[in-house]
Amino acid sequence: MKNTQVVLAQRPEGAPKANDFAVVETETVPLEDGQALVKNLYISLDAGFRNWMDEDSGDEVLPAMPLGKAVMGLILGEVIESRNSGIEVGCLLMARLAWEEFSVVNEGDWWVEVDNEHQLPLSYHLGVLGDTGMSGYFGLVDIGQPKPGDTVVVSAAGGAVGSVAGQIAKIMGARVIGLAGSDEKCQRLVNELGYDVGINYKADNLSALIGQHCPNGIDVYFDNVGGLLLETILEHIAHGARIPFCGAVADYTAQKSGGGGPSNLFQLVAQCVTLQGFMTHFQLERYPEARSQLAQWLASGELKAHEHMYCGVDQCGIAFSDMFAGKNFGKAVVKVAAS
Amino acid sequence: MKNTQVVLAQRPEGAPKANDFAVVETETVPLEDGQALVKNLYISLDAGFRNWMDEDSGDEVLPAMPLGKAVMGLILGEVIESRNSGIEVGCLLMARLAWEEFSVVNEGDWWVEVDNEHQLPLSYHLGVLGDTGMSGYFGLVDIGQPKPGDTVVVSAAGGAVGSVAGQIAKIMGARVIGLAGSDEKCQRLVNELGYDVGINYKADNLSALIGQHCPNGIDVYFDNVGGLLLETILEHIAHGARIPFCGAVADYTAQKSGGGGPSNLFQLVAQCVTLQGFMTHFQLERYPEARSQLAQWLASGELKAHEHMYCGVDQCGIAFSDMFAGKNFGKAVVKVAAS
Repeated sequence: MKNTQVVLAQRPEGAPKANDFAVVETETVPLEDGQALVKNLYISLDAGFRNWMDEDSGDEVLPAMPLGKAVMGLILGEVIESRNSGIEVGCLLMARLAWEEFSVVNEGDWWVEVDNEHQLPLSYHLGVLGDTGMSGYFGLVDIGQPKPGDTVVVSAAGGAVGSVAGQIAKIMGARVIGLAGSDEKCQRLVNELGYDVGINYKADNLSALIGQHCPNGIDVYFDNVGGLLLETILEHIAHGARIPFCGAVADYTAQKSGGGGPSNLFQLVAQCVTLQGFMTHFQLERYPEARSQLAQWLASGELKAHEHMYCGVDQCGIAFSDMFAGKNFGKAVVKVAAS
Repeated sequence: MKNTQVVLAQRPEGAPKANDFAVVETETVPLEDGQALVKNLYISLDAGFRNWMDEDSGDEVLPAMPLGKAVMGLILGEVIESRNSGIEVGCLLMARLAWEEFSVVNEGDWWVEVDNEHQLPLSYHLGVLGDTGMSGYFGLVDIGQPKPGDTVVVSAAGGAVGSVAGQIAKIMGARVIGLAGSDEKCQRLVNELGYDVGINYKADNLSALIGQHCPNGIDVYFDNVGGLLLETILEHIAHGARIPFCGAVADYTAQKSGGGGPSNLFQLVAQCVTLQGFMTHFQLERYPEARSQLAQWLASGELKAHEHMYCGVDQCGIAFSDMFAGKNFGKAVVKVAAS
């Protein structure tokens, strides 16, 4: 069968560009014992995968992505052929596969079956019901713990994780301020996601704007960004604040420049602040609980799933580059095929 | 009565020097209604007070220290005269008074009575049984939570807080590595405080040394220092590590140079690390519990109080400067008079 792939054409310098990737036509090959063939339906675009595109990245478990091969990604697909007794044809699964139409799951590879018990669009399992939704949920509910009336600030507020985190903060009764990279996005934060305020983090007077909108300080800062934005936030942090530290797009793409991080971490001591890094993969056993709650909020309309959908596997490189250029609003997903 | 004082002669630039302070002879003045006269017995030297020596420091509650006036400090003394019905003559108290032989407590000033129930040397109430002991205790017990066999690293390991924190970590069954600023101090960490290893943080190959002594990573980093040392530590941080963040001598004395902080905070995300700032003043209700435990460990010999004692109020400026030059081992205290 014809199998269109998107391969790593060259290693990105800093933020990925569309021409770091190339579309190639290949053919599927017959399965060996223990393998299963997956028809890829949706491809999730996750900034974290940028890490494995550098030559010196990776380890024994996940080596650096090789040049000329299909780019690794998180995929939702349907098993259409199987020579593995543990994987049935027709099964829907999520796995670390590749930007292509058909992928092979090998014996021993990590995969999870997708149980669409809540009868929601399948792509939600890569977003609001997947790792990004879990990041918003665990970060806010476990670490942020906003009380009604607390001031919550979310960075990358319109992104896959931020759009969920901000809405959960509203559901929990907080005043929620979103940071995004354009005035247009800031308006969408308010109009479409229900943020109380949207602030363009590129504004010259950013610190003053934050101070103006957070007169009693910031009780929770949901940090998706890392880098020097944290320094500005710490100037306004409230006593006893919590900072769920979820990701650092700034760090993924930073060239090794020797540039420093926040120079005012003493604020953490002075204000008794907890800065807590987390990754949802270490709480897999709690996904069902979180997924039920998120599905309930989706059903009641309190939570909306925002997706930035691209169509066609050949769009993967463009979609991934767009994300680093801040062009997406909500979860970026490529639709490869119908189930 | 003659009252020798040590006054702020000039505002320190960076680390305080002995000539930033001057010894002057004054006289006590008659008390007014509501005041009490305290004979100062011991003066605690605390790096945090450096903050109030800058012209632009302070707020309404604690204004910047004025030039030419006795330097503010934490003092243990005995009430020898009182025109305040709430303060009895003979009472032992701790209060924010000054580097002088006799101080006045005004109506409404903060002070606490010292109950020497454990019959330990009075000066211990400024060290191992006071704020510095509490910092070691709460930081380790509440935040660090080392399990037996965990690797704990303590910065400023021979200082007032570090010397307590390191010993508590040993009592809790951890492998404990201390960082100090000279080879001689590193030997004392091992010989006198029971650390497993002492590492000179000024060593050229510091990161390699830490890696060698922490082959499984650092489970708890008790941070008294802040600054770029944290960056080196984060290179070796273990999954799920806890960082009680207690103080930042590096920040107290940093000239506003624009120098950045740690540039690898993404390690907090990647390793799911909690960096928690704390100040003991917000847990005053738990001091008795902590003090009982510390007194019990002192009685059993598991914990030793290390004091760096100076004699005579005129030594305050020298003692304070010595502390910033890293000359003290254990808690720095000036003995002013016998009770």
